Amino acid sequence: MTTSVGKAPAVAPTSSSESDSFPEDGRRRVVVSSVGPRIANGRFAVKRTEGDVLRVRADLVADGHDVVAGVVRARVVGASDWVERKLASLGNDRFEAELTLDRVGRWELEVEGWIDAFASWHHELERREELGEVLDIDLAIGARLLADAATRAEASDRARLDAAAKALLDRAEPIELRTTLALALDLLALASAHADRSHATRSEPWPVVVDPVHARFAAWYELFPRATGEEGAHGTFRTAETWLPYVLEMGFDVLYLPPIHPIGLAFRKGPENTLGAGPEQPGSPWAIGAPEGGHTAVHPALGTLDDFDRLLKSARDLGLKVALDIAFQASPDHPWVRQHPEWFKHRPDGTIQYAENPPKKYQDVYPFDFETESWRELWAALRDVFRFWIARGVTIFRVDNPHTKPVPFWQWCIESIKADHPEVTFLAEAFTRPRLKYALANVGFSQGYTYFTWRSTKAGLMEYLTELTRPDIADTFRPSFWPNTPDILPDDLQYGGRPAFLARLILAGTLSSHYGIYGPVYELEEHLARPGSGEYAKSEKYEIRQWDRNRPSPTRRAITSLNAIRRAHPALQRNETLRFHPTDNEFILCYSKIWGEDVVVVAVSLDFQHRQSGWVTLDLASLGIDPEETFQVHDLLGGGRHAWRGSRSYVDIDPQALPAQIFAVRRKVRSERDFDYYL
Amino acid sequence: MTTSVGKAPAVAPTSSSESDSFPEDGRRRVVVSSVGPRIANGRFAVKRTEGDVLRVRADLVADGHDVVAGVVRARVVGASDWVERKLASLGNDRFEAELTLDRVGRWELEVEGWIDAFASWHHELERREELGEVLDIDLAIGARLLADAATRAEASDRARLDAAAKALLDRAEPIELRTTLALALDLLALASAHADRSHATRSEPWPVVVDPVHARFAAWYELFPRATGEEGAHGTFRTAETWLPYVLEMGFDVLYLPPIHPIGLAFRKGPENTLGAGPEQPGSPWAIGAPEGGHTAVHPALGTLDDFDRLLKSARDLGLKVALDIAFQASPDHPWVRQHPEWFKHRPDGTIQYAENPPKKYQDVYPFDFETESWRELWAALRDVFRFWIARGVTIFRVDNPHTKPVPFWQWCIESIKADHPEVTFLAEAFTRPRLKYALANVGFSQGYTYFTWRSTKAGLMEYLTELTRPDIADTFRPSFWPNTPDILPDDLQYGGRPAFLARLILAGTLSSHYGIYGPVYELEEHLARPGSGEYAKSEKYEIRQWDRNRPSPTRRAITSLNAIRRAHPALQRNETLRFHPTDNEFILCYSKIWGEDVVVVAVSLDFQHRQSGWVTLDLASLGIDPEETFQVHDLLGGGRHAWRGSRSYVDIDPQALPAQIFAVRRKVRSERDFDYYL
Repeated sequence: MTTSVGKAPAVAPTSSSESDSFPEDGRRRVVVSSVGPRIANGRFAVKRTEGDVLRVRADLVADGHDVVAGVVRARVVGASDWVERKLASLGNDRFEAELTLDRVGRWELEVEGWIDAFASWHHELERREELGEVLDIDLAIGARLLADAATRAEASDRARLDAAAKALLDRAEPIELRTTLALALDLLALASAHADRSHATRSEPWPVVVDPVHARFAAWYELFPRATGEEGAHGTFRTAETWLPYVLEMGFDVLYLPPIHPIGLAFRKGPENTLGAGPEQPGSPWAIGAPEGGHTAVHPALGTLDDFDRLLKSARDLGLKVALDIAFQASPDHPWVRQHPEWFKHRPDGTIQYAENPPKKYQDVYPFDFETESWRELWAALRDVFRFWIARGVTIFRVDNPHTKPVPFWQWCIESIKADHPEVTFLAEAFTRPRLKYALANVGFSQGYTYFTWRSTKAGLMEYLTELTRPDIADTFRPSFWPNTPDILPDDLQYGGRPAFLARLILAGTLSSHYGIYGPVYELEEHLARPGSGEYAKSEKYEIRQWDRNRPSPTRRAITSLNAIRRAHPALQRNETLRFHPTDNEFILCYSKIWGEDVVVVAVSLDFQHRQSGWVTLDLASLGIDPEETFQVHDLLGGGRHAWRGSRSYVDIDPQALPAQIFAVRRKVRSERDFDYYL
Repeated sequence: MTTSVGKAPAVAPTSSSESDSFPEDGRRRVVVSSVGPRIANGRFAVKRTEGDVLRVRADLVADGHDVVAGVVRARVVGASDWVERKLASLGNDRFEAELTLDRVGRWELEVEGWIDAFASWHHELERREELGEVLDIDLAIGARLLADAATRAEASDRARLDAAAKALLDRAEPIELRTTLALALDLLALASAHADRSHATRSEPWPVVVDPVHARFAAWYELFPRATGEEGAHGTFRTAETWLPYVLEMGFDVLYLPPIHPIGLAFRKGPENTLGAGPEQPGSPWAIGAPEGGHTAVHPALGTLDDFDRLLKSARDLGLKVALDIAFQASPDHPWVRQHPEWFKHRPDGTIQYAENPPKKYQDVYPFDFETESWRELWAALRDVFRFWIARGVTIFRVDNPHTKPVPFWQWCIESIKADHPEVTFLAEAFTRPRLKYALANVGFSQGYTYFTWRSTKAGLMEYLTELTRPDIADTFRPSFWPNTPDILPDDLQYGGRPAFLARLILAGTLSSHYGIYGPVYELEEHLARPGSGEYAKSEKYEIRQWDRNRPSPTRRAITSLNAIRRAHPALQRNETLRFHPTDNEFILCYSKIWGEDVVVVAVSLDFQHRQSGWVTLDLASLGIDPEETFQVHDLLGGGRHAWRGSRSYVDIDPQALPAQIFAVRRKVRSERDFDYYL
C-alpha cells in the first residue's frame, strides 16, 4: 500500500480578492447582539426622562466555556464622559445592567464584552478542586494571569495582585492552602477589575434621548388667548395673565396657546368656517401671516412681544409652563409669499394652490413646497422659527399637522434644535395613519396626539392601549390623550352629558400619563356641534368667544381632583405598567398601574346613562398582591374604603354620581424586584 | 397699542456646529423601514435555497396623502445585475413583493420607495371628479406631469405620454372627456413606469444567502469507512465504495465520513475510551495528524488521495454526495505542532494542555490557540484545509465542535470560501448553549445539530420545534435532526426497542427537512451503551467494527420508506409550515406540514411499549380544509385510507406494529394564496 500524503498547498487552489481581508482584530471572541432597548438597530433614539433607570440587556456570546464579562457604557453626547455599569449575567448568555439617566440630553450607549481570563481559570480550578485534581501547573497558570493583571493595575491593587501571584507559586505552602487562596472571591473581583479588555467587542453606539420629566408626565390646558378679554373685547396677553391662577388651581402643568401670530386677510374664514369674511371678523389663528409679520411676529391685537414675554414670566413664576402652537403654513398675506415665492408650489397658471384634503378646503392657507430646489433655505427658516421662540424662553411646542411635512425635515429640525436645547419638547398634532405617526415619533417628536379621542368602546380602548404600551412603540411614541380639541367634539361629549365629560377626562388622565383638554369648553361642558360635523358649533377657531370662569362646574372640580391624584400617585405618571383586568360587564373597563409601592386600580363605566355593575377579576400577581392577603382599597374620587381579598371584586358604577372609581391599593410591600417592571 | 413685529433673526440666536448639516437630499420624502425578512438589520444573512420565492415586506411611509411606489432590488453579489420587483400595497403603508431566488450565491437586496407624482394627482382627480369639481387648471397640472414623465421615457412610451399631455390641454374637447382620458388606468401605469425616482429613498442593502436545495432538504448517512473492510480488516476507500449502493437504496442523499486523516499515536485512545493504547489499536479518527500528515492527508490504511477521489467520483456517478468531517484540533503528532508551535497555548512549563472539558478529557488532542498573535496565519491555514478538499470536489462539510472556535473566525472562513464557492455548505456539530448555536448559524453555518436528540417528550418536542420555526431563527438556523451520533446513544434507543428506532427516525425525518442517522448501528438497532454513559458500547470511535449489511432489518425498510415519502412530498421538504394539532393523549404527537397542494399530517406515539389512542383536533383552516368538507387521508406507511370530516379524528397507534402514521391528505385545492405560507 502506497502512502499518499496531502499538504496544505503553497498557493491556495482558488483565490478571491476578498478572501484574505481579515477583520481588524480576530481575537475579539465575544459577539455582542440583541442589545436593547434599542430601536431599529440604533437608527432611532429610545426615549426616556430625567432620572429614569434604564435596564439595558444584551447577549454576550463567546466560544467555549470561558467566562464572559461586560459593561454598558454611556455618556451625554458632547457633554459628559463615559460612565460604565457592569453587566450581570441573567443566565443563558444574557446580561443586564441598570443605568440612571441623570441628565437631560442626547445620550449614546454601547455594550462592551470581553473574555475574563482569570475568572475562566477560577471557574475551571473550582471544578478541578472538586475532582481533587489540582496540580502545581494549574496554580502556575493562575499566577501568570494574576501577574498579567498586575501590569494593568496601579498602586495597592497592583501590589495585591503581584503578592497573590507569588503566593500561588510558593511551593513551601501546601497546594490545598494555595488553592483556597486562589479561589478567594475578593481575589476574583480584584483580578476581574483589571481584566484584559484589549480584545473586547463593542456594539455600535445607539442613542437614547432623555427629556425633562414633563415630556412623560404633564397635564395640558389649551386656551385661546383672544377669548380672555372683557365682554366683547379681543383678549390680549395681559388679559390672558389673569387666567393663570384659574389654570393653575385646576392643577395643570402646561398652558398651551393656539397660534399667536398675525392673521391673514385674504380668504379669511368667518364664523362656522364660512368664506368671505372681512377685517371685522377675527379669522382663524392658523391662517398665519399678514403685513405685520409671520411666524416670528405676534398678532397686534394680542399685544406686543414684550407683553408675551411678561405672560411667559408670570406663568413661570407660578410654576406653569407655556406651550406655543407652531403651524408651518402661510396665509396668502404672509411676508414669505412675496419674499420667497420659491417656497411655494406654483400651478401652470402661476397661482398657488391653497391647502386642501378633498372635500376639506383651507382657502386661507398656502402649504409650503418641500420639494422646492431651495429646501435648505426653507428648512433653516422653519427651524429658526423655533429658535426665535426658544430665545424668548419657550421650551414646549405643539406642532400643527407635522404629518404634512416630510419626516426627514422633522428629524433634521428637531435634532438641530435639541443639540443646543435638549430640554425643548415637541408634541405632534398628527391625526394620521399609524405608521406615519410612529415615524414622526421615531425621528424625534416628544409626544403625539392619538386615536384616544375616537376610541369609545371597551374593546377599542383595550386594543389601542395594548398597542401603545408594546416595547419599541412605548420606547419611542409617548401618547398624549385629548378628550377634545378645537377640531374635534366627539360623539360621546355631544350626547353623553356630564358623565361623558367626567369619564373621558378620567380615562385620558389615568390611561395616559400625558394628557390635555381644550378649555374652557371642557369644564363648562360645551357639547353643541356644528350640524353635520364633529366640530364645535360657534367654534373659537373662527370667532371670539368669552367664558365665565366663575360659573360653578362639577367637571372643573373633577379635573382638579384628577390632577391632584395624578401628582400624588407615581403609578399614574407612567404608562409602561398599564394592565387591563377582565370584567364581566361590557361597559366596565378596569385597569391598573403600579410603580414602586404605589398601586392604582381604575374602573370606568362607558355607559353614561345607566347604572352598571359587575365582577372584576384582578390579576393579583401583577399587582404584587398575595391571593390570601386582605388588602385595602381607597376610592380616591368617591372617598370610600374597602377591604378586598382574592382576585374577584364587585364594582357598581352609577354614572349620574360618578362614572369612574380610582382606587389606591394598600398592600404588603415586598422587594421592588418582585415586580418585573418594564424599565 | 403698539405693534411689535418679530423677524427671523439674521443670525441664529444659538448655534451648533451640527445644526446646519443638512442631509444629502432633503427631498427624499419616503421613509423606508421594517424591511424583512432581514436579520439584525442586515448584520447577518437571511438563508434561502435555490428557486425559493422570497416574500419581501417593507413600510414605505411618506408625509401627507401622496401615492407612494417602490421596488425591491436584488442581485447576486459580483455575479449579476440588479433586478427589480414592484412592491404592491398591503394597505396601512405596508408593501410586499415576491422575488424568485434563481441562483445559488450571496445576494444583496434593497428596498427603494418614491412619491409617484402622477398617481397622486390621479388619485386627487378621482376625488375631484366625484365632487364634480374638475377645472382646467387641474388637467393642466396633470399635463405637466405627463410631459415630465415623457422626458424620462423613450420611443413609443415617450410619444404616448406627450400625446396624452397634449390631449389633456386641448380645450376643444369637453372637460368631462379629458377627465376620463386622464383617469385611464393604462395611462396611470405608463406614467408610473416613468415616475421621477431621483428623490427615491433606498434602504441599506442586506444579504440573503442562497444555498443549493440540499442545504434545506437532505437525508444524511454517517459511515466509518474503516468499518467497511472484510472480516477483521481495516476498511478502505475501495471497500467503502462497495457500500454506496446500500446507502443509495435506503434513499440517502449524503454519505458523511468521519475524519479520514492520519491518526496520532501519542496518547492514542483504546477501546472504550481507555488510555495507553499502542500502534496495534486504531485510535480515534478525531485525533488528527501523524508524521504522515495532518488535515490535508488521508490515513494510509484507508488508501491514497487517488482512492479518495475515486470514491468521490463513484458516489457522484450514483447521485450521492459525500460530506467530510473537518475537526480543527491536532494530535500531539500533527506536523503543525512542530511547524507552528505558536498556534498552540503553552503552559508556564512549556507543555501544551490537551483539550478538556472537566471531567471529560481528550488526552489525544491539542486545541488550537485562537488568541495567538499569529491568528491571521492560523485562520488562513484552517481555511485552506477546506479549500484543499473543495479542490478535490468535496462541497459538503460537517464541522466538528465549531463552538470551541471563535465565532468571528467562522464568519471570515465561511464568507471567504463561499465567495469563491457559493455551493459549499457547512453543518455545525455544535451541541452547546442555544445562543451560541444561533450565533454560529448567523455567521454562516448552513445547518446545525440540535437538541432533538434529547427531546423525547411531547411538550419538549413541541416547545423546541416552535422555537425553531419562529421567524429570524427559521430564517438563519436550519436544524439537522439526528436520532443518534457516534457520541450519543439516547435513552429512548437504549431502552425503547424497535418502536423507538422507528419513532425517532420518523420524528427526525418529518419534523425536520434535514436529518441524518449514524449507521449501520441505526438500522441494525444497536442499543447497548457503555455502562454509566450515554455513548455506544464498543464505540467505533475507538475500535474497528464490522457490520452485516445483509442482515434483514425492519428499521432499514422503514428508513427506505421514509426517504421515499420525503422525496414524494414537498411539504416534508421544508419546516416553515409545521403546525402542531392538539391531541388528548399525552403520548401522541400530531403535526402537519403543507406546501402548495401537498398536505401531510403525522401522528407519532412516544410510548414505545403500549398501544395508545386518542382524539386529534385538527386545525383545518391551517390545512386549507373546509370544516364541511370530507377529505381523504392515506396512511403512507401503514397503507390504510380513511375519509375524514371535521376537525376531530381518532388515532390508534400500536407501537409493536408501527409507532407512527404519516397521512397524505387529499383535499379540494383552492388558490395557493388561500394559505399564508411563511416564505
